[in-house]
Amino acid sequence: MAKEKKEFVEHITAQSEDFSRWYTDVIMKAEMVDYSEVKGCMVIKPYGYGIWELIQNEMDARFKATGHKNAYFPLLIPESLLNKEAEHVEGFAPEVAWVTHGGGEKLQERLCIRPTSETIICSMYSKWVQSYRDLPLLLNQWCNVLRWEKTTRPFLRTSEFLWQEGHTVHATQQEAEEETERMIGVYKEFAENVLAIPVIAGQKSEKEKFAGAAHTYTMEAMMLDGRALQMGTSHNLGQNFAKGFDIKYLDKDGTQKYVWQTSWGTSTRMIGGLIMVHGDDRGLKLPPKVAPIQCRIVPVAAHKPGVMEKANELFDALKAAGIRVDLDDREQSVGWKFNDCELKGIPIRLEIGPKDIENGKAMLVRRDTFEKIPAPLDHIVEEVQELLAAIHANMLEMARDFREAHTFTAHNFDEFMDGIEKGHGFVKAMWCGDTECELEIKAKTGVTTRCTPFDEHEHLSDVCVHCGKPAKQLMYFAKSY
Amino acid sequence: MAKEKKEFVEHITAQSEDFSRWYTDVIMKAEMVDYSEVKGCMVIKPYGYGIWELIQNEMDARFKATGHKNAYFPLLIPESLLNKEAEHVEGFAPEVAWVTHGGGEKLQERLCIRPTSETIICSMYSKWVQSYRDLPLLLNQWCNVLRWEKTTRPFLRTSEFLWQEGHTVHATQQEAEEETERMIGVYKEFAENVLAIPVIAGQKSEKEKFAGAAHTYTMEAMMLDGRALQMGTSHNLGQNFAKGFDIKYLDKDGTQKYVWQTSWGTSTRMIGGLIMVHGDDRGLKLPPKVAPIQCRIVPVAAHKPGVMEKANELFDALKAAGIRVDLDDREQSVGWKFNDCELKGIPIRLEIGPKDIENGKAMLVRRDTFEKIPAPLDHIVEEVQELLAAIHANMLEMARDFREAHTFTAHNFDEFMDGIEKGHGFVKAMWCGDTECELEIKAKTGVTTRCTPFDEHEHLSDVCVHCGKPAKQLMYFAKSY
Repeated sequence: MAKEKKEFVEHITAQSEDFSRWYTDVIMKAEMVDYSEVKGCMVIKPYGYGIWELIQNEMDARFKATGHKNAYFPLLIPESLLNKEAEHVEGFAPEVAWVTHGGGEKLQERLCIRPTSETIICSMYSKWVQSYRDLPLLLNQWCNVLRWEKTTRPFLRTSEFLWQEGHTVHATQQEAEEETERMIGVYKEFAENVLAIPVIAGQKSEKEKFAGAAHTYTMEAMMLDGRALQMGTSHNLGQNFAKGFDIKYLDKDGTQKYVWQTSWGTSTRMIGGLIMVHGDDRGLKLPPKVAPIQCRIVPVAAHKPGVMEKANELFDALKAAGIRVDLDDREQSVGWKFNDCELKGIPIRLEIGPKDIENGKAMLVRRDTFEKIPAPLDHIVEEVQELLAAIHANMLEMARDFREAHTFTAHNFDEFMDGIEKGHGFVKAMWCGDTECELEIKAKTGVTTRCTPFDEHEHLSDVCVHCGKPAKQLMYFAKSY
Repeated sequence: MAKEKKEFVEHITAQSEDFSRWYTDVIMKAEMVDYSEVKGCMVIKPYGYGIWELIQNEMDARFKATGHKNAYFPLLIPESLLNKEAEHVEGFAPEVAWVTHGGGEKLQERLCIRPTSETIICSMYSKWVQSYRDLPLLLNQWCNVLRWEKTTRPFLRTSEFLWQEGHTVHATQQEAEEETERMIGVYKEFAENVLAIPVIAGQKSEKEKFAGAAHTYTMEAMMLDGRALQMGTSHNLGQNFAKGFDIKYLDKDGTQKYVWQTSWGTSTRMIGGLIMVHGDDRGLKLPPKVAPIQCRIVPVAAHKPGVMEKANELFDALKAAGIRVDLDDREQSVGWKFNDCELKGIPIRLEIGPKDIENGKAMLVRRDTFEKIPAPLDHIVEEVQELLAAIHANMLEMARDFREAHTFTAHNFDEFMDGIEKGHGFVKAMWCGDTECELEIKAKTGVTTRCTPFDEHEHLSDVCVHCGKPAKQLMYFAKSY
């Protein structure tokens, strides 16, 4: 058994040795994804897709609770539509795929596969919105999108990916701004309460904002290698698309007015985030709320009388309580099964053997701390439920502690460089807000602006940490995915 | 109010006048879909998409209960993969859309947008299946597909549509056959118990089977104009794809064997089916289990004291019981609201006014029969729940009665022609099974073979109803969508 365990674990590269190889090992060995015959496109296997389904359920409930409805718009966008908003086409045209032939014939106009759906949706909104009574219009879409990428990594950056995109229309600038803020708030609450990932929410720089937006809000998480991951964005589109697509409404005062719009999105990329925020050298560590299996029962000495009966009984009790439970009755050894639980990141392993039954207890083993907790069999449901909640809370706290330990404050450029080189994490500093300065920082250091946080208002200096011009804002910088 | 009602209803063409225009009027006015700027592609609006979400929930639960898991495979399929199974490529190549450029460059190999995913999935299965331990492999995918269509109608036939496709791999021919039958059975049970649509389940002719299948099972429903709609299919793929894609496993006996496969699918087309099976001249008539709104509360004399309070109280009680309820507090007249309930096909309209409150009752109005049922306010939840169940049962029965009244038995070709001309429905007759005969029947009469039913074994004649050769099977014929 010891040998098996060793062999099993050896297959995963240690995080400290090569974080990137560790990531690839985990996603492949935990059977989350596979590479396909189509360059840059991934196959999401059942274990990975199960996480996505749970993410969808949790998010969709939040969207509906905030008044949104789902709809579906076409996959293909005519070139002339894509071209209607100048900044938008400039941002996306270089990375789209073009359909040129259909039904055996060359098309009169090329169609791109949606890289995002603002243009096709706005073409409909210009028909649907006529009066102030039609507003607000609050829609969301769950779908696939495609952006031709040169270097890809499963979940983090693939040509095709799955996502949700919200698209809303409002009568006033203020309502659109409230919606933009509301949805980044929903994302942040979701990241923390469901994925156990603490995020910094704030505003993107001019350079990093969405192509076509007035401004973009983001939530940024820190991975275990100290790099940032943009986990979701919410865009205030102002009237840019309204003017490009002529979306107007007749207001109560009898005049025609352009609408104000927002869009916001999150994707399967979040799965990459939860792997890199929580995982360890034994594999995945899944936050309980999106774990396809929350508790796995491993019978010990399963051939002994009564063991399988008790295991089945516990399975039935946990399942009836709505816990996502499974029972590992495969042929493999107990040691192999323990390793498999760890590799797959199952929050709780429940061991039950003849001695446990004798003592009226089962052993619960936490994936987050490896702690072993004897739990009375007659309160097993409550014990498992409480432990799942405790695991979530601990994972969130561990991630927050890690981020805080890897966040540095720079009052000048020496400290800035120091933070980047030593810290492998976030550096926060005062910044001038100029794109030119931003590009120079990136060229010199490899870090990019992540966001100006909503919740922090320190005034570290009067001047920009890099160029010395007057400082306009506090900015988080980091290397990023 | 009378005038409003009249105007409102006038907008829907009567079924008897022009069934096709009636269909278009209903889907547009009930706000289910809209036409997009992309030829042949529809936009599914929230009310239509809400039905699809309920269909997905119900089906997905059935797939999981029969051991299937969801996964996701790429949208794009390289031309060389599509070409690997000869019959399959012949069937689908003429109707695919081709991506020829991506990321600003011409691609070395064309990629088609999936018309169905057998080929891309089999390319993965050939990697994943190695041993008998890997079998059965039972996956399903919810996604969009695209088939370039010349003439399109929303839900019934569009270039892009949403669907689910199951793809399973088995060790033996028998297991694959059992799965093929199991899934057509799941579909039939779903159609009847959820959509309230009675279907004939049976086997497709050689000509009508899926391109690449050994044989295809189908469920066929009858629309209110007497035409058939294929509502879902389940294919036994035999070893055709296994051989094309080299999918083999090492059996317990130490030998390499080709696997046996199935695939099965249903789509947003089912929504077209439920419109045309249940609707009437006032609009949609939704089966309660997929109605986004099952019960709408319409306050009468809403300005009178206590009415809105009671309406809100009923809303809360029904919602808490898990009924999909809404409360129409819009500015429009009560008559307009009644019409809107009918147009949208909401199963129960609940009217509540000062007199009702005085009498301790609300008026429940059934969409299926227009019957008005006074219901005691203190048992409103039970009354609504029971009525929803009764409406489902009645809708299924009405549809079954209609189908039976429009199904004709033909012992010879005169009776066959008679049935088609008079009946506008299904004609069942004995048939030789030859494709040539099938093509001649279609050319002469416009009808196609629908299926040889599983559950009917009448022997009407020894010879084919058309060509006089020995009869091989009972066959349902009909004009179809």
